[in-house]
Order: sequence, then structure tokens, then C-alpha cells
Amino acid sequence: MTTSAPRTPRALGGPAALERLLAEAEPLGRRADGGWDRPGFGPEEEALRALVVRQVEALGGRATLDRATNLWGWFTPPGPGALVLGSHLDSVPGGGPLDGPLGVFSALAAVGELLGRGWHPRRPLAIVAFRDEEGSRFGRACLGSRLLAGELSEADLAALRDAAGTSLKDLVAATGGDPDAVGPDPEALATIGTFLELHVEQGRALVHHRAPLGVARTIWPHARLRVELPGQANHAGTTPMHERSDPVVALARLVLAARSEAFARGAHATIGSIHVTPNATNAIARFVEAWVDVRAATEGALEALLEHVATVARRLNGSATEVSRTPTTTFDPAFAEQLAQLLSAPMIPTAAGHDAGILQHHGVRAGMLFVRNPTGISHAPEETASVEDRAVGVDALVRVIEELG
Amino acid sequence: MTTSAPRTPRALGGPAALERLLAEAEPLGRRADGGWDRPGFGPEEEALRALVVRQVEALGGRATLDRATNLWGWFTPPGPGALVLGSHLDSVPGGGPLDGPLGVFSALAAVGELLGRGWHPRRPLAIVAFRDEEGSRFGRACLGSRLLAGELSEADLAALRDAAGTSLKDLVAATGGDPDAVGPDPEALATIGTFLELHVEQGRALVHHRAPLGVARTIWPHARLRVELPGQANHAGTTPMHERSDPVVALARLVLAARSEAFARGAHATIGSIHVTPNATNAIARFVEAWVDVRAATEGALEALLEHVATVARRLNGSATEVSRTPTTTFDPAFAEQLAQLLSAPMIPTAAGHDAGILQHHGVRAGMLFVRNPTGISHAPEETASVEDRAVGVDALVRVIEELG
Repeated sequence: MTTSAPRTPRALGGPAALERLLAEAEPLGRRADGGWDRPGFGPEEEALRALVVRQVEALGGRATLDRATNLWGWFTPPGPGALVLGSHLDSVPGGGPLDGPLGVFSALAAVGELLGRGWHPRRPLAIVAFRDEEGSRFGRACLGSRLLAGELSEADLAALRDAAGTSLKDLVAATGGDPDAVGPDPEALATIGTFLELHVEQGRALVHHRAPLGVARTIWPHARLRVELPGQANHAGTTPMHERSDPVVALARLVLAARSEAFARGAHATIGSIHVTPNATNAIARFVEAWVDVRAATEGALEALLEHVATVARRLNGSATEVSRTPTTTFDPAFAEQLAQLLSAPMIPTAAGHDAGILQHHGVRAGMLFVRNPTGISHAPEETASVEDRAVGVDALVRVIEELG
Repeated sequence: MTTSAPRTPRALGGPAALERLLAEAEPLGRRADGGWDRPGFGPEEEALRALVVRQVEALGGRATLDRATNLWGWFTPPGPGALVLGSHLDSVPGGGPLDGPLGVFSALAAVGELLGRGWHPRRPLAIVAFRDEEGSRFGRACLGSRLLAGELSEADLAALRDAAGTSLKDLVAATGGDPDAVGPDPEALATIGTFLELHVEQGRALVHHRAPLGVARTIWPHARLRVELPGQANHAGTTPMHERSDPVVALARLVLAARSEAFARGAHATIGSIHVTPNATNAIARFVEAWVDVRAATEGALEALLEHVATVARRLNGSATEVSRTPTTTFDPAFAEQLAQLLSAPMIPTAAGHDAGILQHHGVRAGMLFVRNPTGISHAPEETASVEDRAVGVDALVRVIEELG
């Protein structure tokens, strides 16, 4: 409003700026049942990007898009060796409000704090919001960073379709972009000297450490199996129990076997997606498809758990197909050590994939900070972080930028 | 075709007529994967009804509809005390070719055989094809016979909607009928003195008896539970196994508990319909709904099995709601005994619901004959009966009509 007092640069930075950005974002994608729906390329992600653009410009920066449709905010002329801070803006269906936006908004708040103090960057400085990190649009996690880094070929790109059959290029055209420009962006990737992603913790390691902030050391290796369990369709009423070949019973055995083996190995196995055919009340099913998400602290433990689940599936007359596997991500050890010392923060592992991990695989010096989450819950509305801990996160980014920027 | 030789009445009856009707029906609703889709009120059921009308008329009978949209073929003037033979024409999704049509076609073949011999009915005689017996359209099994018998109120009728939101009255209007005439039909019900339904067996009792034909004594009592299992949505990667509340794991325990208890009681428990929310690969589910179909030889065993499943659901922090319960159906004992002696056929129980069971509950003298099914499989394309056994079925109906007609 033109009649309000002009904002001082100071009001655009620090923890108060973070809280204001979170409050402005809060209604976007909020569901009646408490969670948030902010799919990649959806109107909520677009609205969050517009909010980021306004904040970048209010700070005197310049918003740009790379060819992978990620949103950048440059506070210096773009150039190699840049310090880049950011995360993503999209959410899983029914997710929490912090997974993604906290990292982008905290970076903006930290940059705003420093610029408000009259600080000047000594090297190129940018924030970034990666596109569709949760992969809920096209089923590819970390889509924006993978595309930036060249992990998707032109053919992969052409094959990507969302549930409505729309391609990535169609979506870019619909949001006013140039579909022919979409693709890997080695030039943008080459500007990144150091990348730092702040994220709400997806677990309770920091609760156990009694620390508001932690530094990621590694990302657990990760794989996905598609298990197919065939059975014999038959009448639910008339078929004796001993003559059944019921794939739902096989599924039950698989779920418990995967859980028990994951427990034994200190690993994680999750069956969260199940499709029963024909899924009728009065018919023994003829087919069950189940997706198994597997993570472990070491690649050996991952391999053993995968092998166990596949063996159980075969014993149940089914099959298991490995759909994806990501090896251990080890963040730059010297950078992680530097962050831990600078911030007096503990080192913790994480079991979730992140854009920072994708960049680390492509030769970027990447690191991650986690902000304590009292519930430990992630990808659900119970995900949270206190205002105090969020402020610790902003202050930490301020110190990192002062040290490295 | 007007140039072909006129058919003799003889060619319209007996096992050859049954085989011809089955061959004409064979392509209707046939799927690429081998099963048949013939939903109630669908174009396949309509085509099968048209085939029945042609056969009734070729035999000199008159096709009529009752107010419940069931198709009748009268071979005498309609009247009380009629001998009525029939079954249904619709199938479950991906079902077999005989469940339903075998009973209607065998009745037509038997009537054709007798009329071809110059036999004359001594009392009213009809065949009937009940509408939507499998309930795949509106989720109500035996829709046509229940509606005929007055089990559905006007309010129930108005509330019935198929998956597309279409009401029963809309469907009747769409197939050229008078929607306002739809409802219970006590007059049509009152014409039935004796009802006999022939059906392919849905199990292998006749294989064990080494008999081509059996007489139904009872239908097992039957109930359905809807089980709701809540959990805590969380990140599949980062949540330690011991901190999870995963409703898919609860489902697995429920499936195995229901199976084990059903085994112990010689009863049947089936979980064939499962809905996982949000059903995402990388998220621990927050909610699972599962439908449990329960049948047992006695009402006491049914009650005990239901109570066990509900207790297990509660122990898993879930709930179980009884959605429907049907008590034991005992077919008219004197009629069953008469059929068994006339046909030298064993008495067998059945665990499936049938239109004959609905009519028996409403005071009709009802009976059922089963034709041997070597696989014992039902509601799937492997359902079968040999040509020889099908002929035994037609001959049995001929003898029953001679005796009772």
C-alpha cells in the first residue's frame, strides 16, 4: 500500500522476516484436514515462487530461472564460485508447512539480515528454490536439481508425464515459459561453488542431542522395489481356506517380513503403496502390486535387506523388480566439519533424499543443516519446529554467509 | 434369415439348445485377459436379455418384465402357484461365463425339450432372469430379487447410485423402461409357487462326491465388516521402525489373524478390498480401510469369527463396523429331499448368496441345483463345467418340470 511507511531493509531480514514469509505462505495449499498440498508445478508452488520473487526484489536482488525451471535470486552478478543457499517450495500431498519452504525462506531472511547491516558479498551470492523436489508431479524426486545437473536425457524429459498425461514442456509453456529452452543447464550448475540447504529435521536425532541445529554427514543409500504377487481369483464365499491362493495374504507376509528384517538391520523398509486387483469385497484378489521403499545406513545393509525382501517375494510366488537405487551420499567432509565447528552443531545422518545430495553427486561442494523437529514427523502436518529453533537456523545461515560469502 | 429351413421345436430344446445359447453368449463382455465383464444394467446384460427374449418367443412363450426389472418368460398364462426356473445373466468384473447364464439357459433348454416333445404344463410355468445378482452396479447383491421381494424401500431405491452417480430409475429410463413403475412387485412374487435355480458349483464338493449334480441344503450365514486402521503419516526414509505407527503393518496382522481364525473354525474370511491413504511410495500411510467378508457353517461360528476380527482390529487401534449380516438360509427341506431323491443327487451346502436364497427368505418354496465345476473356481474365468455335466443339468430340469410342472 502506498500510504504505509516505507520498509527499512532491516525489516526484510532476520528471524522476523522468516516468520513473515511463513505466515504469508501458510494458507497456500492448506487442506481442511490440516495438511498442505503443494505439488510441483501446481498453483501453490507458483504462488510460493511469486512470494520469493517479491522478497528477492525487495532485497535488491534479481530473480532468474535456469533451464531446469528452478528459481534463483542473485544478490551479485551471477558468476562462478557462488555461494548458493536454498531448498524447495513444493510438498508431498498432505505434507507439512516447513519441508522445503523453511530452507528457501531462511536463506532469504539471512541474506536480508546481512544486506540490512550494510554487509557486502565478497563473491557471487544467490538463493535457489528447486522445482518439484518431492517428485509428486512426475514420480521423479528432486526433479529440478536432477534436470539442472543433466541426469535426465532429452528422451527421459519427453517421456515424463503427470497423472493427467501432461508433459514437463507443456507445463512450462502453460506457466509462460519457453518449452524448447527446458533441459539440463551446465552453465547454471557451474556457477555453484558451494551449496548449503537448510531443512527441517525428518527424525528426532536433534531431540536426542538436545541441539536446535545439526549438520548432515551422509544420506543413507536408498532403493525402491516393485513387488508383484499373483494369486488365483476366486469367490470369497465358497472357496475353502486351504484351496486359496490369496495374494493379499502373501502381501501380509511380505509386509511383516520386510518390517522384521529392517528392524534386525537397523534399516528402514516401508510399504506405503498397494494396488489390489480387482479390489472387490466379495472376491479373493488375483493380483497385488506393492512398492517397497528401502533405506539403510550402509550399502551392504541395503543390499542384504533388498535381497531378503526379493527372496520373500519369490517364496510367495511373486517377483521383485528394483526400480531405483541411490548409493550413499557423503557430503563434502571438510565442509561438514567446518559447518559443525562454526555452528557448534552435532553431525547427524539423514535417510531422506535432498537436492543437496543430487548436487554433491555432481561435484558441487554441498552441505545441509537440519533444524530440530520435536515430533520427528515428516511428510505430514505434525512436522514442526519452534520459532526459537527457526531463529537459530536463520542466525546459522547468517554466520555461514559471513564466513564464506 | 427367411431363406433358411424353418427350425423344428425339437432343435430349440435339450442340451444342444443350451450349448447353442452359451456359444451365442460367449463373445458378450469377453475381455482380452480371458474373463467376462457383464455388469448389471450394462450392454452385455442387455444383450443377454435380448437373447433370452428371442429364445422365449421362439418357444412360443411371452417375455415380460416385473416392476423390479427382472425378465420373465411365461409358457402359460401367468398365475399363482407357478413353477419358475431361472437365475441371473450378469457377472462380476472378470468373472466366468457360467455363473448366472447357465441357470437361465438350462431352464430354457429344458422347457424347449418338453415343449418339443408335445408336453403340456399342468400349472403356470415360467423362466426368470434376475437383474444384477452380483451387485457390481450398486453394491447390493441380488438386487433384482431383493427389489421384487420388497427388501428395498422407496428411500433405499432413491439412494442407490452407481459409480458414475446414476440412479436405478435413470438406468431404467435409459433402457426404455418407465422409471416411475420401478419398485417392489408383490403381485409377481405371489405368482411363484416353486422356484428352482440351477447354478455352476462354486467349490468342489461335487468333485469329492464324484457326482455331476448336487442339491443345495443351506446357504451359510454371511457378514461384512468394514475395518478402519488409523496410523501416523510419516516419511518412509527417515522414520525409525520403532517410532512408526504404520496402518499397513496393522493390516498385515489383521489379514493373518482373520485367516488363522477362519482356518481354526472351518469358516471363510476374505480381505479382497483395501484402500490405503495416501498410497504413496515414499510415505508411511496414515489410514487403511479394509473390507472383511466372513462366512461360516453356523451362525455361532460366524459370530465368533466376527468378534475375533473386530477384537484384533481394536487391538490394532482400529475399529470394525458390521455393514451387513445375512442369517443361515435353509432351503425348503421337503423340496430339497424331493429333488435329491428324484435326481439321485447328493445334498451339499453352499457359502454363496443367491436369488433363490432371497426368495426362500420371503416364503417361496425355493431350491437350488449345482452342476459340478472341476476347478472349483468361481468369479474368475477358470470357472467351468463339462459339456456332459451341463447336459445332466438340463436333463435334471426336464425331470423336475415333468414331475412338478
